Amino acid sequence: MFNIEKPTLLLNKQQCLANIRYMSEKAQRNYLEFRPHFKTHQSAEIGEWFRGFGVNKITVSSVTMAEYFAANNWTDITIAFPVNLREINSINYLAKSITLNLLVESVETVEFLNSNLDNKVNLFIKIDTGNNRTGVDSKNFNLISKIISKIDSAEKILFKGFLSHAGHTYKAISPEQIGAFHRQQISSLKNLKKLFRNASEEIILSIGDTPACTLEDYFEDIDEIRPGNFVFYDVMQYELSVCDTGVIAVCLACPVVAVHKNRQEIVVYGGAVHLSKETITDGFDRKYYGLVVKLNKGRWDMPLKDCYVKALSQEHGIIKMGEKEIQNINPGDIIGVLPIHSCLTANLMKQYLTLENEIITMMR
Amino acid sequence: MFNIEKPTLLLNKQQCLANIRYMSEKAQRNYLEFRPHFKTHQSAEIGEWFRGFGVNKITVSSVTMAEYFAANNWTDITIAFPVNLREINSINYLAKSITLNLLVESVETVEFLNSNLDNKVNLFIKIDTGNNRTGVDSKNFNLISKIISKIDSAEKILFKGFLSHAGHTYKAISPEQIGAFHRQQISSLKNLKKLFRNASEEIILSIGDTPACTLEDYFEDIDEIRPGNFVFYDVMQYELSVCDTGVIAVCLACPVVAVHKNRQEIVVYGGAVHLSKETITDGFDRKYYGLVVKLNKGRWDMPLKDCYVKALSQEHGIIKMGEKEIQNINPGDIIGVLPIHSCLTANLMKQYLTLENEIITMMR
Repeated sequence: MFNIEKPTLLLNKQQCLANIRYMSEKAQRNYLEFRPHFKTHQSAEIGEWFRGFGVNKITVSSVTMAEYFAANNWTDITIAFPVNLREINSINYLAKSITLNLLVESVETVEFLNSNLDNKVNLFIKIDTGNNRTGVDSKNFNLISKIISKIDSAEKILFKGFLSHAGHTYKAISPEQIGAFHRQQISSLKNLKKLFRNASEEIILSIGDTPACTLEDYFEDIDEIRPGNFVFYDVMQYELSVCDTGVIAVCLACPVVAVHKNRQEIVVYGGAVHLSKETITDGFDRKYYGLVVKLNKGRWDMPLKDCYVKALSQEHGIIKMGEKEIQNINPGDIIGVLPIHSCLTANLMKQYLTLENEIITMMR
Repeated sequence: MFNIEKPTLLLNKQQCLANIRYMSEKAQRNYLEFRPHFKTHQSAEIGEWFRGFGVNKITVSSVTMAEYFAANNWTDITIAFPVNLREINSINYLAKSITLNLLVESVETVEFLNSNLDNKVNLFIKIDTGNNRTGVDSKNFNLISKIISKIDSAEKILFKGFLSHAGHTYKAISPEQIGAFHRQQISSLKNLKKLFRNASEEIILSIGDTPACTLEDYFEDIDEIRPGNFVFYDVMQYELSVCDTGVIAVCLACPVVAVHKNRQEIVVYGGAVHLSKETITDGFDRKYYGLVVKLNKGRWDMPLKDCYVKALSQEHGIIKMGEKEIQNINPGDIIGVLPIHSCLTANLMKQYLTLENEIITMMR
């Protein structure tokens, strides 16, 4: 299979397209604007695949990423990250040519924008619905009210609505708990929409996480979804019971460089600088860095039982292998690793190789 | 301080030079060849600083890195990674123009090299002295003997000696234990040198880890040291009691984007794609992703007490802060983070900004 010399991030394009189709159809079925997060793939070319499903609005996680996709003809971009005041020049430059949607969570940031914006931007108030990372507490009506007033009095800022990211679904212990977090998030946002209904003609409610967007079918009063990871999925989503391993669309192909049958371990060229040090602890308290697959006739198989990436150094991966499996492994073979967190692996690898043997580039 | 808009990896060049001087003088004092590992900094320009201390032989962790440094006039390079058979073309190309030292741990790899090499290479047998990652068990005299015989019968391969990396010093619970692992490593290598003294005119013993090379002063019969991380050090070395935080030479400058006084947390632009997800658990069972410093008059201070990076998302860092410290922090400020693992942070950031405001580039 292919002429792989070094760690190479394989992309199953057909599966990736199926993942996009699934989420796109779900959005349509539920009358939701589909504004996918492009931080996972970070690729103009993969972005084009989304246009085939009618997508024309996207989400990114940095100003730099907004610049990259704006340069690739995306004209309506939400930067789902609190406004970084120090990038005001880039923000002004972007807002000149595209519809730019920003997130705020303080009065001070609105004041800063009001004083420093050259062009009009749309503003969402970031709401914390339990993730405790960023955002205004969904019960802090006083602060939300102050931010809205400040926006209203600002000339170049349009209040668009409330945006949240239920990142705590990634800590859920079951699909049922993901559902509970999701419903609680929707309830909090609905409440805000009702309370502040006079603040704008149309208040948009935007939510984002891949676990809930994949599993749930209740989106009452929600206007927009922004999932990102679903484009590839990964072992983390599998461990959360969000997906099966069959829908994972990326796999790191790694050359085998040493075989240690005595301790049932192989060493591959493929380490922390390829996979990232994202780790997961499964239900049996086993901490690991990836699942292991064999490559076969131009694609990868299901994960091997009793095999996992046990440790990562900068360039080395140590894979624990079943006694039978290891018998047929030799230096020079290629072994596949399904990444724990596909966003971080893609970010490190900087390009993809499709199963059709085409290179797909990413933002640098 | 500077005009920092985005996460920026600051480099204290004077401290970096002091770190190089320290290790270089230690090598000289102990009559050791100093062959520093360049995987930490991955920069041709920083490489030049080493030449000022008489260094003309280096270590790298991949064929790609060897190509980069060979292109920057390094003519004697050890690739401290098991030979990856799939890169034989690049290996042949490199061996044409430089002195190339490779690592093997199986008879099969020697056989492959013998059949496929166009030019002469030097070979070290990688010895496992307790790290259990790669290498032949230091007691497996039978396999070592077979590999040496195979090398002897190969035309283009010269047996150079035994090389080990006591990576298990990173799991030591005390400096005393680091010393114990170090002495045990030396004892194993000395034993091999004695046993196989007839295999070559000169058998080189090469060792590598920063913890032992920093702390220890006993190097009997060792010919060469290959530490890498010491060029910057990091919080991991600090937690191992290998160094004080004052010698850490890199620091990620991060814009503050949100302040949550109620839960004593700030959010910075600086996440897993900047710092890496390397984490450490300290003596109080606190898991964290970096220590926090203030930037002051063009340099950074000592780490703030009771402050640490609590969590990382793709672009976000969540910093826990003392009640007093957080009072003076505002969005738009810059906060410094000392990385847990400087090798991985540097690899992600791809360039440095010195405190003298000069950009230093790295391998891409």
